[in-house]
This record gives sequence, structure tokens and C-alpha cells, in this order.
Amino acid sequence: MLKGFSVPLTPDGKSALATLPPWHYSSDCVAIEYWADPAAIDALLPPGLVRDEKSGGRAFFWFLDWQFTASNDELTDPARYQYREAFALVEATFEGTPVNYCPYIFVDNDAGIARGWAQGYPKKLGSIFQTRSFSAPSPAAAPLAKGSRFGASLAAHGERLATARIQLEERVADPWTVFNRPTTMRRYFPQLAAGRQQKPPVNELTLSLTDNLKIVDVWAGSAELQIPEVEGEDMHSIAPLRVGRGYRLGMAYSVTDLRILKNYAA
Amino acid sequence: MLKGFSVPLTPDGKSALATLPPWHYSSDCVAIEYWADPAAIDALLPPGLVRDEKSGGRAFFWFLDWQFTASNDELTDPARYQYREAFALVEATFEGTPVNYCPYIFVDNDAGIARGWAQGYPKKLGSIFQTRSFSAPSPAAAPLAKGSRFGASLAAHGERLATARIQLEERVADPWTVFNRPTTMRRYFPQLAAGRQQKPPVNELTLSLTDNLKIVDVWAGSAELQIPEVEGEDMHSIAPLRVGRGYRLGMAYSVTDLRILKNYAA
Amino acid sequence: MLKGFSVPLTPDGKSALATLPPWHYSSDCVAIEYWADPAAIDALLPPGLVRDEKSGGRAFFWFLDWQFTASNDELTDPARYQYREAFALVEATFEGTPVNYCPYIFVDNDAGIARGWAQGYPKKLGSIFQTRSFSAPSPAAAPLAKGSRFGASLAAHGERLATARIQLEERVADPWTVFNRPTTMRRYFPQLAAGRQQKPPVNELTLSLTDNLKIVDVWAGSAELQIPEVEGEDMHSIAPLRVGRGYRLGMAYSVTDLRILKNYAA
Amino acid sequence: MLKGFSVPLTPDGKSALATLPPWHYSSDCVAIEYWADPAAIDALLPPGLVRDEKSGGRAFFWFLDWQFTASNDELTDPARYQYREAFALVEATFEGTPVNYCPYIFVDNDAGIARGWAQGYPKKLGSIFQTRSFSAPSPAAAPLAKGSRFGASLAAHGERLATARIQLEERVADPWTVFNRPTTMRRYFPQLAAGRQQKPPVNELTLSLTDNLKIVDVWAGSAELQIPEVEGEDMHSIAPLRVGRGYRLGMAYSVTDLRILKNYAA
Repeated sequence: MLKGFSVPLTPDGKSALATLPPWHYSSDCVAIEYWADPAAIDALLPPGLVRDEKSGGRAFFWFLDWQFTASNDELTDPARYQYREAFALVEATFEGTPVNYCPYIFVDNDAGIARGWAQGYPKKLGSIFQTRSFSAPSPAAAPLAKGSRFGASLAAHGERLATARIQLEERVADPWTVFNRPTTMRRYFPQLAAGRQQKPPVNELTLSLTDNLKIVDVWAGSAELQIPEVEGEDMHSIAPLRVGRGYRLGMAYSVTDLRILKNYAA
Repeated sequence: MLKGFSVPLTPDGKSALATLPPWHYSSDCVAIEYWADPAAIDALLPPGLVRDEKSGGRAFFWFLDWQFTASNDELTDPARYQYREAFALVEATFEGTPVNYCPYIFVDNDAGIARGWAQGYPKKLGSIFQTRSFSAPSPAAAPLAKGSRFGASLAAHGERLATARIQLEERVADPWTVFNRPTTMRRYFPQLAAGRQQKPPVNELTLSLTDNLKIVDVWAGSAELQIPEVEGEDMHSIAPLRVGRGYRLGMAYSVTDLRILKNYAA
Repeated sequence: MLKGFSVPLTPDGKSALATLPPWHYSSDCVAIEYWADPAAIDALLPPGLVRDEKSGGRAFFWFLDWQFTASNDELTDPARYQYREAFALVEATFEGTPVNYCPYIFVDNDAGIARGWAQGYPKKLGSIFQTRSFSAPSPAAAPLAKGSRFGASLAAHGERLATARIQLEERVADPWTVFNRPTTMRRYFPQLAAGRQQKPPVNELTLSLTDNLKIVDVWAGSAELQIPEVEGEDMHSIAPLRVGRGYRLGMAYSVTDLRILKNYAA
Repeated sequence: MLKGFSVPLTPDGKSALATLPPWHYSSDCVAIEYWADPAAIDALLPPGLVRDEKSGGRAFFWFLDWQFTASNDELTDPARYQYREAFALVEATFEGTPVNYCPYIFVDNDAGIARGWAQGYPKKLGSIFQTRSFSAPSPAAAPLAKGSRFGASLAAHGERLATARIQLEERVADPWTVFNRPTTMRRYFPQLAAGRQQKPPVNELTLSLTDNLKIVDVWAGSAELQIPEVEGEDMHSIAPLRVGRGYRLGMAYSVTDLRILKNYAA
């Protein structure tokens, strides 16, 4: 009997990139609010999603340092399971409900790719960094305090895809006023057999379900964000026309399920 | 209209990890013939494949330096599209026909993962190296000549998973006497929605189709191979009990199609 | 006028791997107390240092996630200046004073190599990971609390060089009872000109000077440590014969100076 | 007795980044002739070198895939000793003799850094790629033939520092008409002790000595080269104002010695 939630399937199931949920995550995050060209957002949305007219092109660019564990003490194997991620979320509506949609996401870990694709996150490999907040006092410590500056960056294949900086101004009492939309994705897996290469067997609009979501230690401040034009990448189409607030926060949740909003393949 | 053979789908299709075939490949390869525990091979084979009784547990471990191009001059963007790979092939039969089956494969490139999963190769990220043969004469050049020594290695997440060395003895006139089995894989994509996590929507036995297959400059010689036991990996179950010949060769082919031998999900 | 504390020197001085001190550091650390073969420690010490008889072969193996800044907001460029490190410290005496000596150290950043060599740390490239403590509550968060488990690892060139795990038991009230020795290094830079290849122009015993040293949030607990034998590396000679306590702490300091204890080249 | 040409010094000498010469190298190279701002070249040259008036700002940008071996079969450990490099050479004269000077160089290997610094190459870490020429025929093979296209790139810390493409037109009968200048470097190692931080103990103008230099299979053609402006790097000051010919070649040599042209520290 071969085991594994994802490939590779093996008798002992240790090699699988992903094991069965629950999957538990905790992270430090830098998130930048910004506004992109509404037409570019329109062009990225899959069927069933429409751009949120009230948002005026609002989007968030996130950088995350993640720690992951499933049920086998994975958090003590950080070389395999700790990872970094960056993604864009654009604001849309689904049947009238405000949601985020994730058109671009980069991660530095293969288990992260396997779990992400299973949910619908279109993950590619990238190299992601963010300034961290250390507890030992020093000019290098970046404490969670007014005036602290954080930088963050994303690169793939040696091209810088996004660079951000924020400067903390004040603690945010109620994070739910800022981060209040569920996230939708397109779950997609292609077919290579000739004649069916444009008929993907998996092609769904999905909704991320986050159990026990915790958002803590949220600070807001001023922000800068660049998403430069790069050969071989399309993300520049949603580059910032205007940048809003920057946020630095902690976030945790668990994943045990996924909601399928639409099955395009049916 | 969103474009891309794989995720992410975008209006311009430049961000997609994989575009529509044809996919063209050329490579330098180090391959080690060896014999593993037949019971361990039995335990890895998916339904419909049986271990080849005549092989006595024979397997090959491959290291490949690949250059890839599709139709947009991808070979001139080596930071994105040149990559390295290592995999094990174990000998089996499908309905009486001798085949190889690929239970483990590692690659250092995300486009390689995306195309590989579409075919059924259970790719994970790894760091792969092989001694190269350079044309400028030097003790460092490793020419294709009797006595030249080549090393190769595979690591993932900072653990050495395979180490090989070969020493060239003679040119092989007819490579088809050595490399004569088609390769089968298990194409597999899971479902995360609760209640269906053990019912993968894509679960097929597939056969690799290689158009215009060329095998050139084949040399054979003595070989060493280690596949050590590593926490969090199962590949050691097919570690060598005995090592045969080592090969160094060039290989090229194109991919435009995939044969589905069995659909386990139906 | 060309500028830079280290190479490369340029008119604007931006390319230099290291600029003039002060250099400020803050870190999270996992440190494992252990005992190595005293004869192996003897064999590693440079002239003027003798093994500390009272230590019985005691050593510490450290894993550190560092944030660095000099005077140009380097902490907001984490892709260039944030880094990870692992090293061994063995206990010795210099003219009767208890000290540590650093025979092996690995880092994942070139600015870290440049500053380290200037001090005498014999840095090589490695890939280093440690479990982090995140503030958002989750099974993945690893809080600083009794029972939390942390893992750490070091690899170089795809070989695992050290693996550690600790489980927190209690907070340490006074870290100076544990971490109370200054660190010595051998500052060394060779000469390539024929006839002088064994007469290094820089060959000194140095003492690390750490301004404003802060050690905070120290926890102690049980520990495991492996330093496996690896082809092409000598660090296994000081592998643990016995493992003591594991520590998890925060540490910060600044560097503005270096003490030369002995000049071997004179 | 501690051994090693470079740090770390150990009883067995296996850990040292560099062992005593001879060092043997063979490589595949892509080199782009171009012209930079003569004033920017002036500003980069160390004392004793003057810009070559006849060159009009001529420079070459090189990308190299290297294989290295010393005397211990290092070429069969490609994970440690195979590496990639990129550098700029600007044309100058030393006491009337035409030479090249290397102001910027990037490499992906720590042994490469250690040997390079010993010679005077101001190496930093980078990620370097070049299209390779494979022997198995395919649209992906990039043979050494009229019309073949090669790309090359350099990145550091996730920023693209140089991108090149060449298209082969003809074989070059006599490579010495193109590559006929010896290379000079500045060998430099700083002092950290307070009060002496601007008095480096090693500060020399050096000349690379290449035994048994071989240049083979030289092709020339059209070329493109970009050296973009990047935060935290100065190399853009010698970006191309005009691009000349592109070359693809093999090169090998051995290193056993170094000539010191000037000692600035004396």
C-alpha cells in the first residue's frame, strides 16, 4: 500500500512532499496595501470572479516567513519545512461577496509548492527575504516599535520581482478592519496527452479555509513598493500605481479542508 | 483569455511555468547500473506494473545536466530554463512488456517540476552536480577518454541522497543494447476538500513518449554508487546491493504527447 | 579615491562586501553544550592556546539567525545582509585565561565571510536552519515555553555536517554562568607568490571584542547533537562523545575593534 | 601541525577551502567586448595602472563555467569544486604594457572565493548561468555552429547585475588576436584593529600567471549586454555605452604562482 497525500508515493510515506492534513502554520508577515490598474486586475480574474468596484484596484503584496508542521514534529526539521513566501492578492467579488484572489505567488520550498498547488495557489520558486524583529536590543534588532524600518524582497531566477520597505507608526487595535476577506484561488492541473492539452482535468475556483486563524501584533506605517518589469514574468501588469499603508504582523492558522466554489472542468 | 499550460495563468502567458509542447531537451548524463532489493522494488510499484523477474532487482541511477527549450528561445535564458536532475529507474513489466518505472526524481528548477508532474514524474527539489567534460585540455577537463573519472551527487535540504563515481573504460558502439526500455510513471494530483482527500482526481499510470530520441557519445566503465539512509526520505530502500557498469552519454529528445496506460481514478 | 573596508574597492564604496565598523548584530541562537575528544581539540589549537584541562573537552555548537546593520540602514536590505551561521567553539586557555577558540564556522552570506575573515573566523559557505519562535499561537509556533522543541542543521555542498534538537525545560536566570568566555580566532591570509606560499602575510591569534553584548531570553533543556563523518571535511574529529544541555537565546553586540593576541607572522 | 593553504587550518587539511597549488582549471566561456565610460574606468584603477588611451574605454564582460582540480581528484567532487563565475575586465597599461584589470567579479563557490582573494580577484557571491553546448542534436543543443544563440546572466542577492546574448557567426582562427592581455588585480586584506582600519596589511597590485594557457574552439558573433543600475552595487558605472563582438570559447590553465607588481602597503 503506497502512502502520501502528494507525490512521491512510497510504502512508508516519508518521501511524500505533503502528508494528509491537518497542516499548521505560523508566520511573520510584511504586507503592503496598494492600488493597481483595474483593467489589469480584470484581465487576471478567472470566470466567476469580478473585480470589486468599491476597491478601485486595491491589492496587497505580502511577504511571509513561515514555520510549518503537520503531525510528525516537522517544525524540528526546519531545513525541510521552514520556508518563505511572497504573493499578491487582488480584491474581487464572488456572487456579491468580497474576496481576495491570488494571481501570483512565490515560495522557496518544494513542500510549500505541493501543498499550495493542492489548494490552488499558483506557486513558483522564488527567493524571499524580510527584515526580522529580534529580541536582543541593538541597532540591528528592528523591534516592534514606532520608527522601526523593515525591508522585504522577492526574486526569481536572479531577477528582482518586488521590493518593499515599511516604517512602523502605530499598533493596529483591530486587525479585522484590515484583513477581512477570504482568499480565492484557481486550482489547476493540466493534461499532456495529445488532443487534450487544453482540457485540464483539474480546473476549479477554490476558497481557502483557515481554521483557528490568529492575527497578532499588528503594526501599521508608511510603505514603499516596487514591482519592476522583468523579461519572462507578467506580474508587472499589476505594479503599484499608488501605495497605501504598510503592515507588519504575526499570523497563524491550520488547514484541513478546501471549498470548491466552481468546477470549470465539468 | 488566460494563457499557460501550467499555473500561473495570465493574459500574456509569460509567467506560466510551462507552455504548450513541443518541449525540447538535450543533456549530458551519468548513469549507474545497480541491483536493489527485489522486495523493495515490489513495494514501490503501482498497480498494473510487476517487477521484471528477469532483472533480479536491476535499476539505474541517473544524473542529468539538462538544457531545455520550447518555442521562445528559452535556451538563451539559462537562469530560468537550464537545470539538473537525478532519478532512479527500476525495471518492471507492464502487460508483459519490459519497462522502467520512476519512483524517485529530484530537480533544481520549478519549470522542471511543473512539466514533470504533468507527465507523472514525482519530482522534488534537489541539488545535483556531475563532473563535466570540457574541451580545453587540462587535468581538470575530464575528456571523453579511457581513464577519465566523473563524479556525481544529489542532495536535498542539505542531506546527501546519492553519490556516484565512474571511470571510463570504453566507448559503447550500440547504446540501444543498454538503454532499451520505455519509462512509466504515476501521474497523480490530490484533492484537499474534506472527505475526498484519499480520492485523487488525477491518478494514472503513464508512459513517457520521447520524439526524436538521440543517444550519443556513450562510454562505459567501472562505477560506485551510494544511496545513504536519510531521515525524512525513503529512497534508501532501493539502495544498491551490488553495482554494475557506469555510463556517460549525451541524450536528446522532444516531448509532445503522453500515453495513459491506466486510469486508477476512474 | 577608492573606498571599502573589504574588496571590491570602488569610487562610491557601495560594492564593498564590508564597510568600516561599527557593525551591529542581533540574533536568535540555538547552542548545544557537548564534550569532544580532548586530543582532537589539542590538535586543532594554534600556538599559544592550550586546551582547558578543567573543561575535559567541553565545546559548544552554535546555530545563529543573524540580522546585521552598519550605518546605512543595511537591516532593510535583508536579501544582502540577513544571514545564518553555525560554528563550533572549543574551550582553551590563553596565558592562563579561559577562552573559547573557533576552529570551524559556516555562513550563508558573502558579507558575513568578508567581515568574519577580517576578524579571524575561518568561514566557509553553508546552509543553516533553526526552528524559529513565532508569536502567533499554533502547533507550528515553537513558543519560548517549557516543552517546546527546536531543531537546527548545517550543511555544505549538499552534505549534512551537523544536526541538533533541543527541548526547552526552564528559563536561565543568569546567562553569564553559561556564556562567560571570550572567543579567540586565528586571523590568516595566505601568499600565492612562489617561494612564499608557506609564509602567510597575515597570521595572528585574535580576540573578539563585543561591545554592548546582550544575552536575553535564555532557556535551557535537553539536547541531541550529531556531527557525522563527511568526505572532504574534518569537523567530525570533534564530534560529540557526550552531549550536555541545549540552549535557546537571543544575543546582540557591536563590533568596532579587534585585539591581536599574538602575531605569528612577525 | 595544522595544514591548509587557506582557512580553516586543520590537522588533516581536508577542510581548508584551498590547498597548495598547482590549481588546474578548464572552462566554457561567453565573453562580450564592449566600451564603457573612460572616466568611470579611470576612477576604478588602482595606483600604477592607467587607462589604455588606445582602448577608448574597451572592456570585456566574461561568463565562465569552471571545472577545478588540485591534486586530490577534486574534479570528481563537483558539488564542492565545480563553479560558475562572471567578471569585468577593463583595459589599462602598467608601465607602458597593455594589461586588463579586474574591478568586479562574482562566483558561486567558496573555494573559488578563497583562491580568488589570494590572487587579488575581489570576488563576491553571485548566481551565474550560460547556455551550454550539448552534443546530442536537438533544438535545445546550442551546437558550436553559425546561428547558434547563447544567453548568459549574473545575479547577486536576487538582483540581475548583467545579462548577455550572443549569436555565433564564424570561427576565430587565431584567438590570440582577441585575448592577448595579461590580467592585473588588487590583492587586499584589511585590518580590523582600531586605529589601523585604514592600513590594510595586504595591499598589492598583482599579475595573474597562467601556466599552460589553452584557448580552443573560439567562435565570434553579434552580441547584446546590459549592466543595469542596482541599489547597493557600483558595477553599473562601467555599463556598456557600445557593444562589440560576442565570443564563445573554451579556456584552460594552471596556477602555481603570482607576480606582485607593486606593494602599496610597504
